[in-house]
Amino acid sequence: MKLSARNQLKGRIVEVRKGQTTAHVRLEVNGTLITASITNEAVDELRLANGQDAYAVIKASDVMIATD
Amino acid sequence: MKLSARNQLKGRIVEVRKGQTTAHVRLEVNGTLITASITNEAVDELRLANGQDAYAVIKASDVMIATD
Amino acid sequence: MKLSARNQLKGRIVEVRKGQTTAHVRLEVNGTLITASITNEAVDELRLANGQDAYAVIKASDVMIATD
Amino acid sequence: MKLSARNQLKGRIVEVRKGQTTAHVRLEVNGTLITASITNEAVDELRLANGQDAYAVIKASDVMIATD
Amino acid sequence: MKLSARNQLKGRIVEVRKGQTTAHVRLEVNGTLITASITNEAVDELRLANGQDAYAVIKASDVMIATD
Amino acid sequence: MKLSARNQLKGRIVEVRKGQTTAHVRLEVNGTLITASITNEAVDELRLANGQDAYAVIKASDVMIATD
Repeated sequence: MKLSARNQLKGRIVEVRKGQTTAHVRLEVNGTLITASITNEAVDELRLANGQDAYAVIKASDVMIATD
Repeated sequence: MKLSARNQLKGRIVEVRKGQTTAHVRLEVNGTLITASITNEAVDELRLANGQDAYAVIKASDVMIATD
Repeated sequence: MKLSARNQLKGRIVEVRKGQTTAHVRLEVNGTLITASITNEAVDELRLANGQDAYAVIKASDVMIATD
Repeated sequence: MKLSARNQLKGRIVEVRKGQTTAHVRLEVNGTLITASITNEAVDELRLANGQDAYAVIKASDVMIATD
Repeated sequence: MKLSARNQLKGRIVEVRKGQTTAHVRLEVNGTLITASITNEAVDELRLANGQDAYAVIKASDVMIATD
Repeated sequence: MKLSARNQLKGRIVEVRKGQTTAHVRLEVNGTLITASITNEAVDELRLANGQDAYAVIKASDVMIATD
């Protein structure tokens, strides 16, 4: 499957924390931590777990720019 | 200013392309390219330009996870 | 690739309209039209064109509910 | 009320599951399941329940396109 | 129509600027300017124009918090 | 830090409610209530609490327009 989302960052899962409906998944991508808030169901269906290779996928219109 | 967004990735701007209302800004973050789609006004107000240090800022609820 | 996004609706592309940076792509999914606003680059990279099979992909946190 | 969001898909609610703050609501739209992640408060205020007619509302900039 | 989006801010349109596909619409809400980036089609369909009463509608999961 | 997000509305926090992973934070901005759904971690890191001055920050592409 090819996806229109411009940002598909390869990394490794370092934390999966499930709440009642919403889970937080943390990836390490080139030494940077990225946090994703997704459904518990997605965690189960993709069998996401620590140490697994995965991608953080982000649509360009969801990225802001900041400067110091 | 401190921001609730969980993902604030430091990098350098490598491309700024403006359309009629919407601009695409590309950052290099640790060797990875990240594309942001923002307003032309934001580009002007922050004076975004090639070679400038900047952050890609992404809310956790806008990050998806993919696996191979 | 498997994706955490809960909504992956199979359909057929019926319109691709590019602006200067942002394109509008329209899919027919089970008789319903769905409009996506994506980058021109994504249109080019995925070679999106009328008549092509494709999926509309939407993260659950981007779906609202309305009632009459 | 008329809304700028391009995607307003009529369906029927088939599941409402509340967490501590966030609820998942599932609609059947023309035989396709659509999942929405919304606040518990919205569920209460709109009195969302199984069997109810409702719309899934999605802004065009939140729709991605994928191809096989 | 009742909508699950938690933020529906009543105001008045003070600017409508169309690009090739994407328009910027500015509302004044209680003395504060709010900018929306929507499709040209939505502008046409809702006949948005200066001086018109309108609402800015924002899903709670799209709101961040910042502190000084 | 300067941010590309077009909407940065100054107000005061009037409610912080944490779930297992996701928190709801409510601000009063010029007499209008704004609800944000953010991570518990952000609440902790920014030490968000009732009575505190804060900003609601919203990207223009996440704002819709509605008319009566």
